[in-house]
Amino acid sequence: MNELQIKGERAKEASYFLSNVSSKQKEQALLNMAQSLVERKEMILKANQLDVENAMSKGISKSMLDRLTLDSDRIHAMANGLKQVAFLQDPVGEVLSMSKRPNGLQIGQQRVPIGVIGIIYEARPNVTCDAAGLCLKAGNAVILRGGSEAFHSNQAIVSILADAVSASGLPKDSIQLVEDTSRETAHALMKLNEYIDVLIPRGGAGLIEAVVKNATVPVIETGTGNCHIYVDEFCEMEMAKAIVLNAKTSRPAVCNAAEKLLVHENVASTFLPLVAEALREKEVEIRGDEYVNHIIDDIVIATEEDWHKEYLDYVLAIKVVRHIDEAIAHINQYSSHHSEAIVTTNYHHAQRFLQRVDSAAVYVNASTRFTDGEEFGFGAEIGISTQKLHARGPMGLKELTTVKYIIYGDGQIR
Amino acid sequence: MNELQIKGERAKEASYFLSNVSSKQKEQALLNMAQSLVERKEMILKANQLDVENAMSKGISKSMLDRLTLDSDRIHAMANGLKQVAFLQDPVGEVLSMSKRPNGLQIGQQRVPIGVIGIIYEARPNVTCDAAGLCLKAGNAVILRGGSEAFHSNQAIVSILADAVSASGLPKDSIQLVEDTSRETAHALMKLNEYIDVLIPRGGAGLIEAVVKNATVPVIETGTGNCHIYVDEFCEMEMAKAIVLNAKTSRPAVCNAAEKLLVHENVASTFLPLVAEALREKEVEIRGDEYVNHIIDDIVIATEEDWHKEYLDYVLAIKVVRHIDEAIAHINQYSSHHSEAIVTTNYHHAQRFLQRVDSAAVYVNASTRFTDGEEFGFGAEIGISTQKLHARGPMGLKELTTVKYIIYGDGQIR
Repeated sequence: MNELQIKGERAKEASYFLSNVSSKQKEQALLNMAQSLVERKEMILKANQLDVENAMSKGISKSMLDRLTLDSDRIHAMANGLKQVAFLQDPVGEVLSMSKRPNGLQIGQQRVPIGVIGIIYEARPNVTCDAAGLCLKAGNAVILRGGSEAFHSNQAIVSILADAVSASGLPKDSIQLVEDTSRETAHALMKLNEYIDVLIPRGGAGLIEAVVKNATVPVIETGTGNCHIYVDEFCEMEMAKAIVLNAKTSRPAVCNAAEKLLVHENVASTFLPLVAEALREKEVEIRGDEYVNHIIDDIVIATEEDWHKEYLDYVLAIKVVRHIDEAIAHINQYSSHHSEAIVTTNYHHAQRFLQRVDSAAVYVNASTRFTDGEEFGFGAEIGISTQKLHARGPMGLKELTTVKYIIYGDGQIR
Repeated sequence: MNELQIKGERAKEASYFLSNVSSKQKEQALLNMAQSLVERKEMILKANQLDVENAMSKGISKSMLDRLTLDSDRIHAMANGLKQVAFLQDPVGEVLSMSKRPNGLQIGQQRVPIGVIGIIYEARPNVTCDAAGLCLKAGNAVILRGGSEAFHSNQAIVSILADAVSASGLPKDSIQLVEDTSRETAHALMKLNEYIDVLIPRGGAGLIEAVVKNATVPVIETGTGNCHIYVDEFCEMEMAKAIVLNAKTSRPAVCNAAEKLLVHENVASTFLPLVAEALREKEVEIRGDEYVNHIIDDIVIATEEDWHKEYLDYVLAIKVVRHIDEAIAHINQYSSHHSEAIVTTNYHHAQRFLQRVDSAAVYVNASTRFTDGEEFGFGAEIGISTQKLHARGPMGLKELTTVKYIIYGDGQIR
């Protein structure tokens, strides 16, 4: 057995233990994890410094360096996240339905942990802690495979968390880190069907594509957000402007930020100058089709590639459409099926958009920025699913569980 | 674009149409499909005869030939299946929950069709009809890829069903067959992520393994059943005997048949002779461990391979265990996680088995043969999922849907 198989077998073993511990025990373990993180933060900071120095010597980008770097505040934030998760309601054990069949069998569907969850992610050490906490709370063992840039930080964090779990009377192997950060080992992890029940990639489009392409373990695709806002011919312009500005500029680098604006031609000549001025005040680069180019000066003409693209930056591409169905068709064709919004005062258009747009979250008169586990009231999230199987949209604790049928009989045969 | 991409694009287009038609329209289409099948059965029988002749000249097995062969009764049964599905409750549109957030956003989770479903299966033409009916009822377009042995039968059935769908005012492309039955095209279908939302393989372990290994499209694994019955030290022997006999011999070739029997050592010397005699009357071959060999004459000693194996035949392997936890551990290690049963009179043992066995359906005092969409009250099933994502156990119409979040706002920004 290689490193991965050994870790897999241990994780499976730990998962059977975890699936039968009380909510109270898991809560206590999470609180202990939070406390240990803070108590042993010097160990994390020292390890992180090593990662940061290595990364700087390799010349990684400023934004990546920012995501990699930890300080005391960030460690406290991680610990607070664990505490918050500790007090969330435990989803495990709930019987979703139970009914009696004509033959007397009582058939129930019960929520149970998934088992072993694999997380593949990039250079954000806080993901290590967040993911471990959520998986544990839902009764799952987790195998973490973070980016090589954060290796020492992840090692320190996992060692501290696993110690705390173990001191709480739960298996130390509930939280494990893949020590070998090579691509080969990542690929082997993606094919570890015997031990891993689901793989969740967290990171950029390239990482997610690589996992979808190579994994034989079931995957939940997360995160890519080519989100659209459609401004209908019937709408309050000020509301539309506020929603576009918020969705584009409040945090452009996240997946629920708007990347595209579709505007009905009947309001294009009034709305576009209004929104363009506001966007330019925020230094947003505007791209657009020929129609937009006639109305606003100094735009970049959008190419076919633009309609597919998730900029994650101060860039917005605008298209003018002739009617709501053209907007819906454009969205269904080009969207990554994450979040889309219509701004309208028309009842029928609102309903039509909600029913026909094929995305995880569809909004009427609100910013796409709300697609988020916290905002949806889940307390925390492990990611945002853009696929249709198992989970769609923000994934909280419930999405880290599965069900099984439990059947009470008294001798029934068929 | 190749054949598959064209079919994929058409299926996607059809799926958008289907996701917005009324339950009444889908019901009528299904009734028309049923009627057409019967009216045009000569066309199916002629095509099937061609397949049967080809198959016989290639010398396929008797059981495969039986599954391939259609007659008037079987076509009527397919039509009746469609009628039954027509009158099932439409799962689409249900709002599972809706709540108001502190900021006034109303966030609801609505059941919607998955979109485009791919079905890969072997030489059973009735699957063509069953799968098409269920997918349509749940508002999905379907792309069917059956085995080459049933090609002409499938072509006739799909042509009749698609005509009936079209005559009902729904897109003809709602039901499509992949005409090229080569392995290369099957593999291309497994990677058609742009158009297919989920792939469901139906068939033997080899087919399912090939799909899991090669697909980049999300897969729902179905069917393999290495099912166990554990006879506890506290139990009614006659009930235990009846359940074992039923689970093993009522239909040995199906996935919910028992393949393994675990017996507590305290009852082994009394129960094993009793059950062995009954099994041998039904001509079941008994394999067993050394302990069993001491109690029953003329058994085959079971190898490690036996514990993993799904016989799908009149063979049962028996193991004696020292306590319930050994039974649970054995099941969790060797089972295909389909269906397992305990026979016991002990409350704590019943609860322990239900909670700790990690399978899709876990029974107390009943035969594993009940794991079935009809028996569970779903009206029909598309397969039995042995994986943990999205669906677990028998899959009915609900499992052919997904959810999306619909959000009603009045100008909220974040």
